[in-house]
Amino acid sequence: MLIFDIIPYITKISIDSGVNIIYKTVLKGGYYTAIDKNQIDYQADSLICIDENGQIANIVCPMDEDYETIQLEASQQDNLVVLAEDQVILPGFVDLHVHAPQWPNAGLALDRPLYEWLDQYTFPLEAKFKDANYAHLVYDNLVETLLANGTTTALYFGSVDNTGNVELAKACLTHHQRGFVGKVVMDNPEQTPDYYRDESAQTALDETEAFIHEVEQLNKDQAIPVTPVITPRFLPSCTDEVLVGLGKLAAQYNLPIQSHCSESDWENGYALETHGKRDAAVLDEFGLLTDKTVLAHGTLLNDEDLDRFKNRGVGIAHCPISNVYFGNAVMATHKILEKDVKVGMGTDISGGFDPSIYQNIRQAIMSSRMLEDGVDSQLSPEVRGQKSSAITAKNAFYMATVGGAKSLNLPTGQIKEGYAADLQVVHTKYPTFGHQKPEETFEKVMYQTTASEIDHVMTQGVFVK
Amino acid sequence: MLIFDIIPYITKISIDSGVNIIYKTVLKGGYYTAIDKNQIDYQADSLICIDENGQIANIVCPMDEDYETIQLEASQQDNLVVLAEDQVILPGFVDLHVHAPQWPNAGLALDRPLYEWLDQYTFPLEAKFKDANYAHLVYDNLVETLLANGTTTALYFGSVDNTGNVELAKACLTHHQRGFVGKVVMDNPEQTPDYYRDESAQTALDETEAFIHEVEQLNKDQAIPVTPVITPRFLPSCTDEVLVGLGKLAAQYNLPIQSHCSESDWENGYALETHGKRDAAVLDEFGLLTDKTVLAHGTLLNDEDLDRFKNRGVGIAHCPISNVYFGNAVMATHKILEKDVKVGMGTDISGGFDPSIYQNIRQAIMSSRMLEDGVDSQLSPEVRGQKSSAITAKNAFYMATVGGAKSLNLPTGQIKEGYAADLQVVHTKYPTFGHQKPEETFEKVMYQTTASEIDHVMTQGVFVK
Ligand SMILES: [Zn+2]
Ligand SMILES: [Zn+2]
Repeated sequence: MLIFDIIPYITKISIDSGVNIIYKTVLKGGYYTAIDKNQIDYQADSLICIDENGQIANIVCPMDEDYETIQLEASQQDNLVVLAEDQVILPGFVDLHVHAPQWPNAGLALDRPLYEWLDQYTFPLEAKFKDANYAHLVYDNLVETLLANGTTTALYFGSVDNTGNVELAKACLTHHQRGFVGKVVMDNPEQTPDYYRDESAQTALDETEAFIHEVEQLNKDQAIPVTPVITPRFLPSCTDEVLVGLGKLAAQYNLPIQSHCSESDWENGYALETHGKRDAAVLDEFGLLTDKTVLAHGTLLNDEDLDRFKNRGVGIAHCPISNVYFGNAVMATHKILEKDVKVGMGTDISGGFDPSIYQNIRQAIMSSRMLEDGVDSQLSPEVRGQKSSAITAKNAFYMATVGGAKSLNLPTGQIKEGYAADLQVVHTKYPTFGHQKPEETFEKVMYQTTASEIDHVMTQGVFVK
Repeated sequence: MLIFDIIPYITKISIDSGVNIIYKTVLKGGYYTAIDKNQIDYQADSLICIDENGQIANIVCPMDEDYETIQLEASQQDNLVVLAEDQVILPGFVDLHVHAPQWPNAGLALDRPLYEWLDQYTFPLEAKFKDANYAHLVYDNLVETLLANGTTTALYFGSVDNTGNVELAKACLTHHQRGFVGKVVMDNPEQTPDYYRDESAQTALDETEAFIHEVEQLNKDQAIPVTPVITPRFLPSCTDEVLVGLGKLAAQYNLPIQSHCSESDWENGYALETHGKRDAAVLDEFGLLTDKTVLAHGTLLNDEDLDRFKNRGVGIAHCPISNVYFGNAVMATHKILEKDVKVGMGTDISGGFDPSIYQNIRQAIMSSRMLEDGVDSQLSPEVRGQKSSAITAKNAFYMATVGGAKSLNLPTGQIKEGYAADLQVVHTKYPTFGHQKPEETFEKVMYQTTASEIDHVMTQGVFVK
């Protein structure tokens, strides 16, 4: 049974040039979009024509012969949005890793070791999402905040309890965010607290399936349906029995899968100790590595793991801020990009303190440079770092848009005909004090944008900010 | 001749309890201030009483018997400013390292090697500050931006040309920022471009002295005078002759000194190669290490250097964002704090892309954790990092306030009687979703504040934002 088509909302429209088409919105301005991991395309003064379905139906350059006609018609229909001189258009971001119930703790207790952080801060908070009112309050604010930061698509870990997960799905629908929501599974009594655990493997599987059906109901008549996600928290929190069952559910409903993988020395070591294999190999055995799987962190992934990911089509959620606190090393992003393994960006709230993908773009660049140069001044420059590890702002922008979209198999993350109109309009933060090349504007946008500089956000053709 | 008393504006007033004193402003709210590098004091609902001189004359707690009287009187005089529930008061920040003329380049060309960055981006830009109009435009925006980010005191590198430096001093005076401004000296033809260099050692010294006197004129009748700073750019750009002369000028006028020290492998190696000694030792020989010296970066400082700094009373400007791009290693901040060497924070615009000290606080914490854990996953955890390197949010806040103030020998950076009323009022960025302890609010403020959350900034008792 296939109840979730992951991209049900995009229908291809054939455009006959010359025929008058009334677009829902035409955005006029300069835009940036990633062509590949090293190349960003900039087009000035373009008309981005968005149809009734919220799809980019047409992109018209000033050189094109119907430019003036389309502009005039849109203007007459009052559908033309003309950008200011200091504004540019970018694709909306994809956040591949958010622990939604941890939002109230963003920025807290980051100086604690992982175990204490989970045990004293994270699990007690997540357990509160049994309460629908509390969940509604938090999720409403979270989804709004992510949209305000330019995140049009988000892949969420929910909580063990579905009461909260339903509220999260509702918040995505209400605010018009492309949401992927997982009921968190953690049934291993040895690694989970009494008060926050699935009662049994069977309960966990039943609740997962129940959530799938609840989402199916919620999605009725929605322009952007929520996608349920098979979500084993991580190996230590799951029994083999539940992992087998989750692999089957993922196949049965053709759903995305998310988990953590090789995040820290402790977590990486756990799989080796209990299963005698690496994290990735264990997940693979349970049928949890598919081309719809997204695994978070991966600071300690080795070449064998990456080859396995490439073969299976698995995507990685790179969470550079969180990794500083809990990852024990820097993810080898440059190598992962070179190998063409799918990789996008994640905030990992609240292991990461910042809901902004921009801030994570900056940290991804900085962490990669620190891996390249090394950090310990007591070592000589020759042995201090790992050569060829640095990534550029372009690489990071690619991950935040195209990389995330590919990991979720979505036609978003690019400004391109046939793609969803998931967009953000930002203004440059400071004056240019003279002429500035498009490449320089791009760098400034990457390095200086916060939510305050994001003027508009659009998901599926609808302005949500 | 001593023409600059570094703290001429603070006069001690004796407060007789019980006598009615009319304060210029009374701020009512909770405040945080660093007691030492590991301790932050929080006081709720206090009255911070600011006198006509812009000094904190009195801090009154709800338990004090004159609390109600002072509050009532201030209210009647219309001098009472009551904070909202989500606002807190912090000391203004001290930024110990800003290259003012590089402001238009913030965020640009950070993927270039240092030499190319200097040669193709930085020197050509700095050379433009011969033009007073351009300088006025840029500096006006820069000083305003730093104040908006909570930076009430800044130590600036200007340009070689005094035309721009005078504009920078004027911008500080106009906007009421505690400014320290240095005419940059670079007279070594082998390491500086033809179009941007002091003509000779003697010209450099003459211009430095001329700037001192120009500032003296500008300071007349100003509440917060600008302090001129002796500023050899770094060893490679200076001849021995000019360094000798600058050391003498610093002594003659009793002025602060700033330069770069052990910033990168290249710069650290230059001193060893040309002088056969370490950076710090060479500066010391020229009389440039005093208790008014602030040296930027220091990623490659060793124990001998640090002991020398401690003996001389030298302060370090820690610029964690810039260091990622040009420092080649992480500064050993934890060790420097343990040794009680003076150390504050610097943005190092535009080696650092962000004018916010908050953002540098966050990177200081993150970089220190990366030094502790190490970055290279191919090494085993035992040898990957340097144990005991991580610093806390408290440590970083201490550096941004008390550490910076001590480095400049200023009575600022603390909320304490007798200190300058250099303050910022910030609101927490996101809802708390329930009760939050003061310690948690502190962490959230450190991790989440951007300029948008800074509601008011006060320098020397005057609201500047
Ligand atoms: Zn996670
Ligand atoms: Zn510098």
